[in-house]
Amino acid sequence: MTEYYAPTYVLFGKGAQNEVGRVLKERGIKKVLIHFGGGSVVKSGLLGVVEASLEVHGIHFVELGGVQPNPRLSLIRKGISLARSENVDMVLSVGGGSALDSSKAISYGVCYDGDVWDVYGRHVAPKASLPVGCIITLAATGSEMSNSSVVTNDEVTPNEKVGCNSNLGRPAVAFMNPELTYTVSAYQTGCGSVDIMMHTLERFFHSGPAFEFTDQSCANVLKTVVKYTKVALENPCDYEARANIMWAGTVSHNGFNNVGYDSIGDWACHKMEHELSAFYDVSHGAGLAAIWGSWARYVASVDYHRFAYLGELVFGLNDDDCKVACERTIVAFEECFRSMGMPTSLKELGLSLSTDDIEALANAASRGGAIRLGNFKVLCEDDIYNIYKAANDR
Amino acid sequence: MTEYYAPTYVLFGKGAQNEVGRVLKERGIKKVLIHFGGGSVVKSGLLGVVEASLEVHGIHFVELGGVQPNPRLSLIRKGISLARSENVDMVLSVGGGSALDSSKAISYGVCYDGDVWDVYGRHVAPKASLPVGCIITLAATGSEMSNSSVVTNDEVTPNEKVGCNSNLGRPAVAFMNPELTYTVSAYQTGCGSVDIMMHTLERFFHSGPAFEFTDQSCANVLKTVVKYTKVALENPCDYEARANIMWAGTVSHNGFNNVGYDSIGDWACHKMEHELSAFYDVSHGAGLAAIWGSWARYVASVDYHRFAYLGELVFGLNDDDCKVACERTIVAFEECFRSMGMPTSLKELGLSLSTDDIEALANAASRGGAIRLGNFKVLCEDDIYNIYKAANDR
Repeated sequence: MTEYYAPTYVLFGKGAQNEVGRVLKERGIKKVLIHFGGGSVVKSGLLGVVEASLEVHGIHFVELGGVQPNPRLSLIRKGISLARSENVDMVLSVGGGSALDSSKAISYGVCYDGDVWDVYGRHVAPKASLPVGCIITLAATGSEMSNSSVVTNDEVTPNEKVGCNSNLGRPAVAFMNPELTYTVSAYQTGCGSVDIMMHTLERFFHSGPAFEFTDQSCANVLKTVVKYTKVALENPCDYEARANIMWAGTVSHNGFNNVGYDSIGDWACHKMEHELSAFYDVSHGAGLAAIWGSWARYVASVDYHRFAYLGELVFGLNDDDCKVACERTIVAFEECFRSMGMPTSLKELGLSLSTDDIEALANAASRGGAIRLGNFKVLCEDDIYNIYKAANDR
Repeated sequence: MTEYYAPTYVLFGKGAQNEVGRVLKERGIKKVLIHFGGGSVVKSGLLGVVEASLEVHGIHFVELGGVQPNPRLSLIRKGISLARSENVDMVLSVGGGSALDSSKAISYGVCYDGDVWDVYGRHVAPKASLPVGCIITLAATGSEMSNSSVVTNDEVTPNEKVGCNSNLGRPAVAFMNPELTYTVSAYQTGCGSVDIMMHTLERFFHSGPAFEFTDQSCANVLKTVVKYTKVALENPCDYEARANIMWAGTVSHNGFNNVGYDSIGDWACHKMEHELSAFYDVSHGAGLAAIWGSWARYVASVDYHRFAYLGELVFGLNDDDCKVACERTIVAFEECFRSMGMPTSLKELGLSLSTDDIEALANAASRGGAIRLGNFKVLCEDDIYNIYKAANDR
């Protein structure tokens, strides 16, 4: 049985950011914490547009900037204090997935009596949260409709990067203007597109039977991103390309591509990448691209046909020998990642790890051997080590 | 700019109906009005299952059956009285789209001081509603996540059939077990599949530019329904077929296939069909099938390429001459409707209308010439007459 619940009110298209004041007022919001990253949303003038829209509709606000990629627990604690002392009734993220995930963590923390890290590191399910809103400036994480957020605990060494999935984390409102992604760099465009593709690949490879409508919907996300990332890299201000990528990013992670599947998907690559990011602070999308091919070859024997079918759906590939078709599919995705400027090995990611390093990663990903990852193929610590090693040795 | 808002909590899969008590209790529901149609949900035992699930979780209920296809205002008034006197806090539909649309109308009426017909016939936007829940037994209207409901005023002659679109009408919860559609007759399966396809075709043909992600998503709905209706008609208990059709039906009408389009779509065929149903009480899906080809040929010159593209996406058709490709697309859809046992003319629908009859329909559809229909091509009363006439003369 699938639970599908994506209640976010979305405004999608040119000028969406101008509607923030009106939409929040209609929802009875009185005061928000605007949460953002570096200076880009200031320099671009977006922050000013949002502030003006709130002011016109009489909505008060306080602000907290400084969110970094792989958002940090220490800033989240500041946000919780500020949100409490200022008595805000919404956290409004302006920026990409990191600002939004940080906002989700603040919204849990405000409504939780204990330490907010409980919700992430100790997997205490949140019971309440402030509503979260977002103005999105990056097509990548799909956090604008998803139940997930990922936080890095920078108060421990090595850092811990852990996610929390809760329907309470689904934003109440999302303002999505594809034009706001025109200024995203080629590298971050590539990272974002890989992240979108991986949210879909993690779901496509699941335990249990296929479901054709959703298989085709997964293929639509993947084909859209493959086609339009090429266009966006050539012409960063192509509206059609940015719009297709942005909406594909939302659909890839709001649960739509789980419907009819018996499980939420594999997710081993995501968990293995979280350790790479926690240890080496790499970009999430790049880390995923560097691992995926090694994961795919390691698990392919579970169901060569599934890989072959994917290659047919997305790239029009086929071969009578399903092992050959499988390998061609994996190669096609790797070529696609490279064409987006993304790595397909740890070396290309800029890492050259020792056996000890790899053991440390595998130990962390498996929580010292206590947990297994994935469900397309269930991976123990040794399997995880082998996949990291394969990605390192390529 | 597109507004996308589909907040319904969906449980999809085998056994979904057994979860109704638990899910409603989690949402704080204390007492529901169970609203349903004829005896089929009684005979099948479904009503008993729902009652038992509510009882286990201590949720009280009262019941009102008797909903007919093209649900009637007179029964809705009874439902409003009962819901008020019994102080229920949710209307829970058990059945198909008619029971659900009737439930939506009751939920508006309970929260409205005036005559509930204001909301439909006089287009007074509802400001509040009781939450609505549904256990779906038919894949057709998509009402389980849609903002729309259609009511027939049986207190006037001829009857008036009018829809209301409001986000307040989107159900709070929907329980969707495809097995519950195994017993749907071949004729009603065909009607339902045409309705699903038409919800997508009405959107695909819209004013303004195309948006590839959504064009492809429309194609996915259409291809899924074309493929699996054939399977379901051959084997009514094929889970895969019923599940794919059911979910395609939800997606076709929850707004997903509007994202990135500048308008909500054409909808002229729906409005013309509402008059057929109001005057002659035909099944909605059959009425749509009987009109669509005549509409399509009448409006095709607006954009032959759009029709040609649709034929390529759904049926793999192509032809260098876009007019030829357009006609082939229309013929392919008509053949598809016929293969589902559906009519492609008014004669096949069982109607043989006089010029006066057709004038009366066109006059009603255009509200005496006061309104125009459609936006792919805007139709005045004469256009509407011509389309009805073409459908009658085939």
